[in-house]
Amino acid sequence: MDFTSATVIFADDAGVPMCEYEQFRNEPHAYAKLWKHHGAQEQAHRIVALAKERGETWLARYGGDLSSELLMPKALETLEKAPSVYTQASQIVDAVDWITWQLTGTLSYAAGDSGYKRMYQDGRYPSPEFLAALNPGFAGAFTDKMTAPVLPLGARVGGLSATAAAWTGLLEGTAVASGNIDAHVHAVSVNAVRPGQLTAILGTSTCWVLPAEEYRDVPGIFGAVDGGIVAGAWGYEAGQSAVGDMFDWFTANCVPQQYVDAAKAAGVHLNDYLMSLTEELEVGESGLVALDWFNGNRSTLVDSDLSGLVVGQTLRTTAPEVFRALVEASVFGARMIIENFEAHGVPITDVTAAGGLLNSAPIMQLYADALRRPLSVASVSQAGAQGSAIYAAVAAGEYADVVAAAAAMGRVRHDAYRPDPDRAARYDQLYAQYTELYQLFGETTEIMHRLRAITREALARRPQL
Amino acid sequence: MDFTSATVIFADDAGVPMCEYEQFRNEPHAYAKLWKHHGAQEQAHRIVALAKERGETWLARYGGDLSSELLMPKALETLEKAPSVYTQASQIVDAVDWITWQLTGTLSYAAGDSGYKRMYQDGRYPSPEFLAALNPGFAGAFTDKMTAPVLPLGARVGGLSATAAAWTGLLEGTAVASGNIDAHVHAVSVNAVRPGQLTAILGTSTCWVLPAEEYRDVPGIFGAVDGGIVAGAWGYEAGQSAVGDMFDWFTANCVPQQYVDAAKAAGVHLNDYLMSLTEELEVGESGLVALDWFNGNRSTLVDSDLSGLVVGQTLRTTAPEVFRALVEASVFGARMIIENFEAHGVPITDVTAAGGLLNSAPIMQLYADALRRPLSVASVSQAGAQGSAIYAAVAAGEYADVVAAAAAMGRVRHDAYRPDPDRAARYDQLYAQYTELYQLFGETTEIMHRLRAITREALARRPQL
Repeated sequence: MDFTSATVIFADDAGVPMCEYEQFRNEPHAYAKLWKHHGAQEQAHRIVALAKERGETWLARYGGDLSSELLMPKALETLEKAPSVYTQASQIVDAVDWITWQLTGTLSYAAGDSGYKRMYQDGRYPSPEFLAALNPGFAGAFTDKMTAPVLPLGARVGGLSATAAAWTGLLEGTAVASGNIDAHVHAVSVNAVRPGQLTAILGTSTCWVLPAEEYRDVPGIFGAVDGGIVAGAWGYEAGQSAVGDMFDWFTANCVPQQYVDAAKAAGVHLNDYLMSLTEELEVGESGLVALDWFNGNRSTLVDSDLSGLVVGQTLRTTAPEVFRALVEASVFGARMIIENFEAHGVPITDVTAAGGLLNSAPIMQLYADALRRPLSVASVSQAGAQGSAIYAAVAAGEYADVVAAAAAMGRVRHDAYRPDPDRAARYDQLYAQYTELYQLFGETTEIMHRLRAITREALARRPQL
Repeated sequence: MDFTSATVIFADDAGVPMCEYEQFRNEPHAYAKLWKHHGAQEQAHRIVALAKERGETWLARYGGDLSSELLMPKALETLEKAPSVYTQASQIVDAVDWITWQLTGTLSYAAGDSGYKRMYQDGRYPSPEFLAALNPGFAGAFTDKMTAPVLPLGARVGGLSATAAAWTGLLEGTAVASGNIDAHVHAVSVNAVRPGQLTAILGTSTCWVLPAEEYRDVPGIFGAVDGGIVAGAWGYEAGQSAVGDMFDWFTANCVPQQYVDAAKAAGVHLNDYLMSLTEELEVGESGLVALDWFNGNRSTLVDSDLSGLVVGQTLRTTAPEVFRALVEASVFGARMIIENFEAHGVPITDVTAAGGLLNSAPIMQLYADALRRPLSVASVSQAGAQGSAIYAAVAAGEYADVVAAAAAMGRVRHDAYRPDPDRAARYDQLYAQYTELYQLFGETTEIMHRLRAITREALARRPQL
């Protein structure tokens, strides 16, 4: 089982989510908080500030900063905004663990998720003293409400229960492996489990996972977890909060009908059609550069209050040109992540891509060109499901360990896209502009934060519905 | 007659434009160069650099910088890119003067246009020595090819010729007044001819004209001309290169069909429909700020290589929100012009608006709110034509002078829009963000210039068609 990790559920000991209690039906905090919900930014800021103040050693494992997407800020937000939900729930559980719990009747925690999203490092959680300093009521968050064991990747949670066998049509007792983060399972699926093998999962958001031989502090990464991708290696995760989501936003909100009609007539996806219209453009011809922070920046700025930017528009700018600028911005954001790893002593030997964007050859070629690297790609269409099956094969005893299972079952098309040296050189020019915007709006000016504050003030002034 | 000034025609002594000569049919430089053509940027830069080097006193009258829109850069560009057109033409003439020439058979130059667009200051043009230093072949530009008299505003060029009487259906001999810049004629039309009375002509671009008692150096203005708006006062002009043009770009290139359909169903202009959808938003709620430089910045940066910018987009941003951000950016650009006048000792007592944007009450209210000033408006729909008629009435001897004619014939609705103090205060917040972006991209970073250079390089790489 893999799932969108850091989706947090407050439940009772039978696993019933609080939102199913009559008293909480109208309480938003009783519902699952989806990974990309950014309501707990204030709590994330406080957690980081306190961890720095107290010199908490686990903070460096998260690049020195925490996303508001993680379990701890979300749980603290629930305590502070809906204390009765927090008190009533005896379990705080990530959705992936909740599912294996429902399938087997046994609650356990997945190692990857626990490390990346629940601050579980070196065999322990943040201390009750730390939690109490955040909020006295939060002291027992882990000791009272998260007490199940953490299982390594590929471990067996239990056998499928009779009930779950009926749901799924599988045999009762079928091995259920400990779950994993939906993006991370791609690393085994493309057999990129050795140190230096970066897997890029390119979808609505992107996730970058990288095994490494030795631990290094890498600022701005999402997390580093011992055994987080494969046992015996440090697993690094970094990510971009909106990639396919940003493209979908664009096609839904910014594209005149003539393009929609023409794409339909040509029988191609609108994204591909827009890209095809820019194919005859030279790199840089549109004069546009964008920042891809439409849902904040997860890596390497770790700031969900950042927002998007497009610069260079003229009266001749077209919708396909802006679309391509957004694609380019996504790739430049990826390059920033790769260069950040390398700058901090975590080497990258090769890059393999998986995820929905693989359907677009022009976009994949753009990745190869603008990253200046050959790109291998997953060669099965449901690479995520295949990755989960690899862990399950280990849990079922078919293979000795995850590395062996990945070698046997993983599928990849090596160097499917190679950079064009000429285009790569021109993308370097554009990347330099992106880098400047990145520094300007990520580090120098506070304008994006001020705009966010202005929005919040404006919303606070609105008459309540 | 009024016309889009700085539209430059190369003609023979009979007024036949060079593009009508068979040999020049395929020569772009033989055709009229429309005011907003920015091909002569390189020439404008050279003219400014040389004028600074030589300490030419007329340069300060143009805010210390020159737009590529002016006659001199355009004429120099023709000399350098199509020398045979330049040599063959015996007359370089602005379109407004070309028209009165065709109507009467008499070539003369309009005072306003001559001052603002042809560098005619204190009774003379830039010297042949200056012109020769730009390019030896350019020395006689004024002394050989622009030798007709400059007439004051409201002066009579001559009577309508028999041929022109047949074209127009008017009586032969009807008084034809010296022409004027299409935007400038609005000042008399709304009877805003006294010092401190700013007239804003809000259309595809905007033009701001302001009579002043005393001359002051105002950096970044488009021009200051003694008697340029009305005899006896200094007339200042400033402007924004793309306003309605930018809105039209947006509606043609960035708006999904559902808005187009809904506007049609509601029977309103798409611009008004998009604005109406933002009416329930609090000021600042969208979190967006834009720079309105989609066709460069005419005032107060005088730089046609600048471009547009939108910042603050999220996955929830809508097309109407972006449209409103562009409208707000236009108004903030206007406020920048107003504050620049005041900061340099040219007082503004009141603001009167004319032009196509008057059709949109929400946009006009936004001007009043974000400028923090009551706004008077032209009260006839064809205020430009009425303004020209006022000058013609003086030329025909109906009134003693332009001030008397404007007082008798001008029409204005005083304080039609008044600022809402609450919204004005909130726009101050957004204006502060605009100001920061203005300084960042106008003065601090060179990124927009680099993007423009990258575009030019990319275009140069394209195979020639």
